[in-house]
Parts: sequence; structure tokens; C-alpha cells
Amino acid sequence: MIKASIITIGDELLIGQTIDTNSAWMAQELNKAGIWVQRRVAVGDVWDDIWQTLDAEAAQSHIVLITGGLGPTADDITKPLLCKYFNGNMIVHPETLERVKHIFEVLLKRPLLERNLKQAEVPDTCQVITNHKGTAPGMWFEKAGVVFVSMPGVPFEMKEMMSREVMPLLQGHFKPAPIFHRTLLTAGAGESFIAERLVDFEAQLPAHIKLAYLPHFGLVRLRLTATGAAATEAEVQSKFGQLQQLVNDIMVVNEDISLHQAVANLLLAANATLAIAESCTGGYISHQITSLAGSSNFFIGSVVSYANDVKNNLLDVQQATLAQHGAVSEATVREMAAGVREKMNTQYAVATSGIMGPGGGSEDKPVGTVWIAIASATRTTAQRFHFRFDRQRNIELTTMQALNMLRLFVLEDSAHA
Amino acid sequence: MIKASIITIGDELLIGQTIDTNSAWMAQELNKAGIWVQRRVAVGDVWDDIWQTLDAEAAQSHIVLITGGLGPTADDITKPLLCKYFNGNMIVHPETLERVKHIFEVLLKRPLLERNLKQAEVPDTCQVITNHKGTAPGMWFEKAGVVFVSMPGVPFEMKEMMSREVMPLLQGHFKPAPIFHRTLLTAGAGESFIAERLVDFEAQLPAHIKLAYLPHFGLVRLRLTATGAAATEAEVQSKFGQLQQLVNDIMVVNEDISLHQAVANLLLAANATLAIAESCTGGYISHQITSLAGSSNFFIGSVVSYANDVKNNLLDVQQATLAQHGAVSEATVREMAAGVREKMNTQYAVATSGIMGPGGGSEDKPVGTVWIAIASATRTTAQRFHFRFDRQRNIELTTMQALNMLRLFVLEDSAHA
Repeated sequence: MIKASIITIGDELLIGQTIDTNSAWMAQELNKAGIWVQRRVAVGDVWDDIWQTLDAEAAQSHIVLITGGLGPTADDITKPLLCKYFNGNMIVHPETLERVKHIFEVLLKRPLLERNLKQAEVPDTCQVITNHKGTAPGMWFEKAGVVFVSMPGVPFEMKEMMSREVMPLLQGHFKPAPIFHRTLLTAGAGESFIAERLVDFEAQLPAHIKLAYLPHFGLVRLRLTATGAAATEAEVQSKFGQLQQLVNDIMVVNEDISLHQAVANLLLAANATLAIAESCTGGYISHQITSLAGSSNFFIGSVVSYANDVKNNLLDVQQATLAQHGAVSEATVREMAAGVREKMNTQYAVATSGIMGPGGGSEDKPVGTVWIAIASATRTTAQRFHFRFDRQRNIELTTMQALNMLRLFVLEDSAHA
Repeated sequence: MIKASIITIGDELLIGQTIDTNSAWMAQELNKAGIWVQRRVAVGDVWDDIWQTLDAEAAQSHIVLITGGLGPTADDITKPLLCKYFNGNMIVHPETLERVKHIFEVLLKRPLLERNLKQAEVPDTCQVITNHKGTAPGMWFEKAGVVFVSMPGVPFEMKEMMSREVMPLLQGHFKPAPIFHRTLLTAGAGESFIAERLVDFEAQLPAHIKLAYLPHFGLVRLRLTATGAAATEAEVQSKFGQLQQLVNDIMVVNEDISLHQAVANLLLAANATLAIAESCTGGYISHQITSLAGSSNFFIGSVVSYANDVKNNLLDVQQATLAQHGAVSEATVREMAAGVREKMNTQYAVATSGIMGPGGGSEDKPVGTVWIAIASATRTTAQRFHFRFDRQRNIELTTMQALNMLRLFVLEDSAHA
């Protein structure tokens, strides 16, 4: 199997000021093409550490992908290091120079600085890879049969370069045998509970098919992976069929998509519209939905009713309800859902109200208490939850539960339609 | 200097299905305590790869922190490996067993499975570290002067364990000399522009003080770091004073906090309230604000007006305005801001409307066109932007610009108050 290592360079990764999202995305792309990422390493802007890491990864992998360390500022040492590592001399690359000039003079309308011009310099031992989205070019090197590719660390620059340029080059060079994945998403059951149910299924899997559990905020993804010469798409598909049967009652969707994408697909298929009244989730459910391209085809809008006055004025929650039951109550979320549905004239509405912490809890309603309601023109359901985590995680879990309740509600309607 | 390596274990990291947020957080904690993270490595659930990585990192670091691979499912091999690596025998740890039973029987009210009981087993060569938030215990090993700590991969379990247990143990064991950091946040200027301005400043920094540029979605953080025996807090503070003078016009705040936290602090200091009308940002600005504990002290609520009807019905944007100028226009965002401010009775309001892509653009208003307005009772400002990126990044950049416009607007009011 073709093996790859990913090296990310930059002190900001080691000091924790930046979360590395590049590596995960790169790993996905490589994996789809049948290239197995065996290690990901982050090192600082330290000459010896980078050099040593290049040596160590090249000893183990066919492909070494490098991101970061190519910016215009003084803390970047990657390019001179690569020049030396691959016994090159720095030369100006004319096409890159033209591109840098164009970006500054035409697109940004900013003065072109000396340090920007340096971005057009590359070692003469590399093949230059076009950066369609920025100034720092990519570089392809080969040494003792190992391919090294250096890309910028800015995510959207790296992604475009990797998709358009690097992946086709790697596939042409290595012609990797494919890896087959099938992934499904479950909700409502813990990892160990699912594992117990799948003991026999796992035991009868052939050695070249592996089952992985990927828990994330109350959801668990199950992934079957077939690798090696014995792997076939038909076999993994057949095992995936068995797996779906075994978890049918907790399965959200039999694809590797997010819960909010699954809900969006369901609403689009039902030709239904959605409005949301968010109190404790503070806009996060709306953000999840609107992060999907095309969400304007079913999503009408939301009211984030943080203050009680907003619940009353904009959502028609009665003052008496708020006074008698409080903002975090079944009565309030039911009225919030009904109110936003009516105001926005949609088929479905979701409402949330809860105490996310760290403050705001009481003996009666401790931090983590949440009410969620789903409403249509004909019925409303409401459910109470109690989450035991920190603010951010409570918001994420409430969002997950709200989307899953909406999914089950729409499914039930579709079954009766 | 005390050096650390962080190893994260799990195929899900290599296949790209999980983004590693643990490492960044751990690195921050270590750094604050004066421990320098020199490498972060992710490896799969592969015996030889884990073993070899333990050897390699122990050869370079005083501390090796390990997360992941301790879950209850069958793909986890970390604990048996650690048992063998540290020449131990697996024994049941009575306190952990009690804890696991309590969690299942009392808190979760779920049946306790055989595989959950296995979580109470540990190698007899480790010191057990309490997991206050879950079932898998942490383990502290020592070998040839190197400290190894294994922690669960679930972020909130790991964080609690690291803060409450592991950091005090590490500080007691190594007594590290501190590292001094000072960080400020800028908005509105590119990395290379700032670097050009700081050429002389950087040149006169002593060798033990380093300046780093940390760009993120249109913002650039500047961080001074002093390390080594010559480093003093007073000196880094003095250099930080000079740095602030040099970037005074573009500085958001002279602390290492987020832009939304800076805006929140400003509103709280001005005793002012905020409402938001979000079209293209779809709830993301509200989410950023409400992710802050205590945001209910100034944030009243939002309307996410995705459909034009919502702009008209809930925000009183006139039909004539929408018909004549369109939803993405100066006139519309001005009316949205005024409308939401009036409905929610706040001092300040923010409104956004734009085309985030990939679809929806026209020749007149291409993808990336955004209007943002800020309103108070006495005045309104509006500004047009054009972003050239993908949907997610356009949403993030619009949010950053809206928060920065709000910041400048409130500052101007405070200056005239």
C-alpha cells in the first residue's frame, strides 16, 4: 500500500494558537485515493527539527506532504531549508512572479513589497505547483524514490492546490490501489452499547475489512474499511448491508454526511420549510443549517430569543407562561415553536431553551437542563434533556438532539403521508 | 528547557474523520507552564507504529503525553501496548471500578457491560490518574527519566484530567522555568503589511525574544515570546509596549482574546445592549456572541432573516426597498439594523446581507458581495465588502468585519460620551 506522512510546520501549532484542520482534510483526500496516511507530525519553525522530521518520515513513507512555513514573514524558514535539503539553488520562477504581481496590483490594489517578491523564488530542484488562490507556490521534490510536496498552510490555498494539482500528480505517479470505505451515522446510542450489539458481526469480518467507531457529540459513526489486494467494493458493500440491518433502529443515514445535511435532505425531499426559535443554542442550529449551500431552499429564518422580552414580543410567548413556568420549560418551548412557525409561515419549527452554564443554574433547573420542541401545523412534541458538560459542548449536544428530534418528527409525517 | 511531545492515537485522525482539537489545547496548557511542545504526532491504531513513536518521542522529550485509544471498543490497542511497553501486568484498579459502576448504575442508568468493566483494568507499573468526567482512567509511567502520561481522547474528559491532575503533577516533577508570552490582536491589515512596518522592531529584539505572526480570517495576532534563562517578564512587557505603539491604529486589543470577546468587553463596559439581524451569516455572529459565558448581560437577541418575507414581517424592511434595491443592498441592511434595534429595544444593532456562494451570484452582485450596517438611536453606518472565498470562509470573514465595525462604532461613541 502507498503510505504517506503529513508534516505541518509552524510554532503556532505547537503553542496551541492554531488548530490544525489541514491535516484532517488532506488525510481524507489521500484516503479516498487509496493512499494510507500513517503519521501526521507537527513541528515548530526550528531548522533541526524540520530537517530531522523530513528524514524520519521519508524513511517510512512513499509520500511526504508538508504544509505551512511559506508565508511572507520573517519567522518562516521552510523554503530555504527545502532548498538546502534538496541540494538546490534559489531562482526566481517567472510565472509565479507574474501571478504575485497580478494579485497585488490588480486584485488587492496594494503596494507590492520586497518580501512579497520573495514568494516567487523557488529552489531549482523542484517542480513548481501553481497556487490558484494565493502568492506562495507549491513545490514537488523527489529524493531516493520518495515524493515530497510542500504546500502553503492557508487552508483554502492548500485545498485548491491539493485538489487541482497535487492529487492528480500523485495518482499519476503512484497509481495506488483503492481503499473502500462505507460509513453510516447513528444517534441515540453509546459507543459501548453499539459495540456489544456488533460483537458477532465484527468477529466474522475478514481480516482485510475493519470496523471503526467514531463518536462525536452524541452521534456515533460506524465505518467499514476494506484494504489490500483481497478488497473488493462488492464485498464491503455486502458487509455494509448487514451492518445497516443490525443498527437500523438507531441509524440516521447510511452515508458519510453530517446530521444537519441529513435533515436538510429530508426536508428538501418532503418539500417542507423550516423556522427555528433558539434560546440557549444562540444561533448555532441556524448556523449549522445555513452552512449548507442551498439551505435557502427550505430554511426561512430564525429568532434568537435570548431575552424574555424577545420571546414575548417576537414569538408571542405569553407573559403568563414565562411568569408561571419560566423560560426553560415545556410550556415555553411549545409556545416558542408555535410562535416562530406562525410568524414565518413554515411547515416545521424547532425551539430550544435551556441553561448552558457555567452560571444560571438553580436546584430546580441545574446547568444542562434543556427543553426542545418540534412543531408542525397539526402537532407538537417536546422533550427535556439534561447535559452534564461545559457550555460549548452543551450547545453542540442540544443542537444534535434538536436536529435528531426534527428528523424523527419529519420521518413520522412522511410515513403517514 | 523542559520539552514535551504529544502523541494522539486513532485511525480516525489519520483518515481525516476527526479534527484534532486536543493537541492545540494541551499545547496551550503546557506552554503556559513553561513547557515547550516540540512535536505533535498522530498515529493509527497500529501496534508497531505506536511502539516506534513512543521510542522516538521519548528519545527527544522529557514528557510524552498520549491521548486516545482508551475507548471501550474493539479497535483500541493502546492499553495492552502500554502494559507491555512498561513491563507491567494488567490488574483491576478498585477505585476506578467503583467509579465505572457508579457512572453506569447511578448516572447513566444503563446496564454495565463486560467491556465497560475492562476500563477499570490498568498496568501495575502505572500511577492511576482519576478521570473525573468519564470511565477510562489516566496513567502515569516513568522510564529512563522520561514521564509518559496516557489520557482519554474525549476532549472534555482529557481537559478536566489535564487541568486538575496532570498539570500539577508535571509542575511538581519538573519545576519548569516559565515562558513569557504577550499577544495582541490586529484587524484590517495583512501579514506582510504589518511585517514591513515591524522590520526595525524585529531587528532590535534580543535573541531570546521572538515575534510571531498568527493570521486568522482577516485578523492577525502578534505574539512576543521570551524563553531561556535571560528572559524576564519586565523585558517582554517593555518590548510589548513598543509593539503596541507601532500597531496602535490597527490594534483591536492588547490581550490574547478573540474579537468577539473584545467586543463583548466593550459593550459591557459601555453598559450597552445588542441585537443582530443576520441574513448571509445565518446565525454565526449570534453563535459567536452567545458562545461567551455571560453574554446574556448585553445580548438581547437576533433575527436570522433568510427569506425576504422575514425581513419584511419581522424586521419591517419595506417591500419597496427590497423590490427596488434587492436584499443585498445598503438600503436593506440599514433598514434591517434599524428594524431589529427597534424590535428588541437595544442601544446597538448589527445587520448583514450578502451572497456567500457557491450559487446566487449575478454580474451586478457576484458571490462574495456583502453589505454590513451598524445602527444606534442616533446614527447608522453601512459598508460594502467583496470576499473572494468559499462559503464557510465568506461567512467567517463577514462575521469578523461586522464585529470589527461594531467595535469601531462603539469606540467612537465612547470617545464622544
